Amino acid sequence: MPPQDIHGEHGIVVQAPDNIRAISPYQPGKPISELAREMALAERDIVKLASNENPLGMSPAARDAASAALVEVARYPDGNGFALKAALSSRLGVGAERIVLGNGSNDVLELAARALLAPGRTAVYSQYGFAVYALATRAAGATGIEVGARDYGHDLDAMGGAIRPDTRVLFIANPNNPTGTFIDGDVIESFVARVPQDVLVVLDEAYTEYLEPARRYDSIAWTARYPNLLVTRTFSKAYGLAGLRVGYGIGHPAVIDLLNRVRQPFNVGSVSLAAAEAALGDEEFLARSAELNDRGMRQLTEAFARLGLEWIPSAGNFVALRVGDAAAVNLGLLRRGVIVRPIGGYGMPEWLRVSVGLPEENARFIEALSPALQGRTAQ
Amino acid sequence: MPPQDIHGEHGIVVQAPDNIRAISPYQPGKPISELAREMALAERDIVKLASNENPLGMSPAARDAASAALVEVARYPDGNGFALKAALSSRLGVGAERIVLGNGSNDVLELAARALLAPGRTAVYSQYGFAVYALATRAAGATGIEVGARDYGHDLDAMGGAIRPDTRVLFIANPNNPTGTFIDGDVIESFVARVPQDVLVVLDEAYTEYLEPARRYDSIAWTARYPNLLVTRTFSKAYGLAGLRVGYGIGHPAVIDLLNRVRQPFNVGSVSLAAAEAALGDEEFLARSAELNDRGMRQLTEAFARLGLEWIPSAGNFVALRVGDAAAVNLGLLRRGVIVRPIGGYGMPEWLRVSVGLPEENARFIEALSPALQGRTAQ
Repeated sequence: MPPQDIHGEHGIVVQAPDNIRAISPYQPGKPISELAREMALAERDIVKLASNENPLGMSPAARDAASAALVEVARYPDGNGFALKAALSSRLGVGAERIVLGNGSNDVLELAARALLAPGRTAVYSQYGFAVYALATRAAGATGIEVGARDYGHDLDAMGGAIRPDTRVLFIANPNNPTGTFIDGDVIESFVARVPQDVLVVLDEAYTEYLEPARRYDSIAWTARYPNLLVTRTFSKAYGLAGLRVGYGIGHPAVIDLLNRVRQPFNVGSVSLAAAEAALGDEEFLARSAELNDRGMRQLTEAFARLGLEWIPSAGNFVALRVGDAAAVNLGLLRRGVIVRPIGGYGMPEWLRVSVGLPEENARFIEALSPALQGRTAQ
Repeated sequence: MPPQDIHGEHGIVVQAPDNIRAISPYQPGKPISELAREMALAERDIVKLASNENPLGMSPAARDAASAALVEVARYPDGNGFALKAALSSRLGVGAERIVLGNGSNDVLELAARALLAPGRTAVYSQYGFAVYALATRAAGATGIEVGARDYGHDLDAMGGAIRPDTRVLFIANPNNPTGTFIDGDVIESFVARVPQDVLVVLDEAYTEYLEPARRYDSIAWTARYPNLLVTRTFSKAYGLAGLRVGYGIGHPAVIDLLNRVRQPFNVGSVSLAAAEAALGDEEFLARSAELNDRGMRQLTEAFARLGLEWIPSAGNFVALRVGDAAAVNLGLLRRGVIVRPIGGYGMPEWLRVSVGLPEENARFIEALSPALQGRTAQ
């Protein structure tokens, strides 16, 4: 929907540039409170599997640290994030000068776009790639080059071929959201090595903590070899801190310095910094979250197989499944108090993306799915 | 300091546009933890009067709401901020479609710059105005027009005269930070009425809650008359929530819609939303904070008078005083465990800005000031 114009005494006023007017805001998953209002349901009866959140909640250590940090919230946060960077530094084996913190990794993705893109520059990303790549590119006044997917995932050869002399950023999500597709680490690294060095490769690893051990790869170590590689990660998924908004990027110190120039000085709050630092130390919680996810993924995909539904094998904590008229099926699910994510906005109007929840949440979704598929009215 | 260049195999790589390379990052107040590390002092012995924070902390109601919201932080925040907007709407008497929420009002200032500025456009702001106006203008690729101050405050006539056909944003801070100067409401309104309607006037009222009753004015009501007016406010100062990062802007629905197009979908965290909503309802805390500030301001300025120091009468919760070699005096204060803000970066190298603290904090500062002025080494 284009923005409405503002008419004043002298005609249209306060005119934004065309690239801003062309932006459609991001469509987030429906909050539980909103569905409760719309459908007159009790919040406790609603199951939300729409935003790839951790169904276990947050690590108890993170909760305690957040609670303790509340005492000092009248103070500005440490704008340099000294303590969290020190913890990341020791955990990942990189100097603090290679780390930038963001208000979620969404913020880091936008910092990269704002620091390196401008009118007359282009960014390359994949069809079915995360929506924020296109939004951030457009907001920076640059032009996006969307490259057709291969089997719903990134076609790296085609992406490499799409790079033009004016390209400054190339986005890769691994695993990809919303399709869950995964590319082996050695394939990604050899691709990064081939990308021209004046193109920053932004490797978005929001779901990396969910990878099975055999698939893990050390992209952080690559950043020492490729000055044009920025790896982004988040505390919003496996760490269970989506509501507190913390992400980070790892890259060459000069790239990090550029990102810091466009970063808001206090982009990450103090409670968030404290919670993320503590969450990083709770490996047991992370392992438990990954294990629960594996079990839930089996529960969901076994049900899809029984129902004869097509799905895309996923390396994340969500899975895309083909249901036909996804808008209608989604409405049927909403009426039964189940929130999943339609991905028509990603050019997949026949698909829904469902996040892996607790066993009983997955069961509620599976139970609601059959009647929703048949277009039956909820009782 | 210009950014370092990145040298790869083939020369300089990952080149940012010139406007980004020209940005110097914002210099925040020194965190207590940092001074403690640097000077080997105990954190509890340090007094920080550097960031215009509320020395009373936060409202107990806000603390309880924040604590309760911690339970749900694995969920993404409500990206539309329904509940906080409803509370603001009822409190300020404006529809929710006239409200945009920000990660601090810093975020709202940047949204305005990003939505309306671009290469080839200009923004007007005052000498000694808040540093973020120039930073946000430059980051958007636009050109800043800094207008000379009058008596350390905004010279509105000169600012009006500086508007060019390519000007799209004009920033006013009232009261102004870091000088504390204030302009009467009716003077501001008649200025806004004269500004061309294709220039968005951003009226930054971060300190408005500290105004004495006789000086208050209803700028929110003006937004109904002037579609090119955006009023910004924050929960970081009088509300005592700096660490949680919440601010807001009030303006014409079409302006708000534009800002939402460049806003990060989850720019405000869920604990922050809950705390701000509760803080808004605690009028008693706000009144107590303003009263403490009045008393502290008298305590400080009476001491300045005794010491024969020049200061700028301030309408905020801070005051600028002239100390001569401010860098040296600041170092003397730091050695005595007192953090204030040197404002050489604002073109005021002989001045320090001190925030109003608790009576005993103000006293610690006053006690440290005399020896620091005389360049005496701390015992």
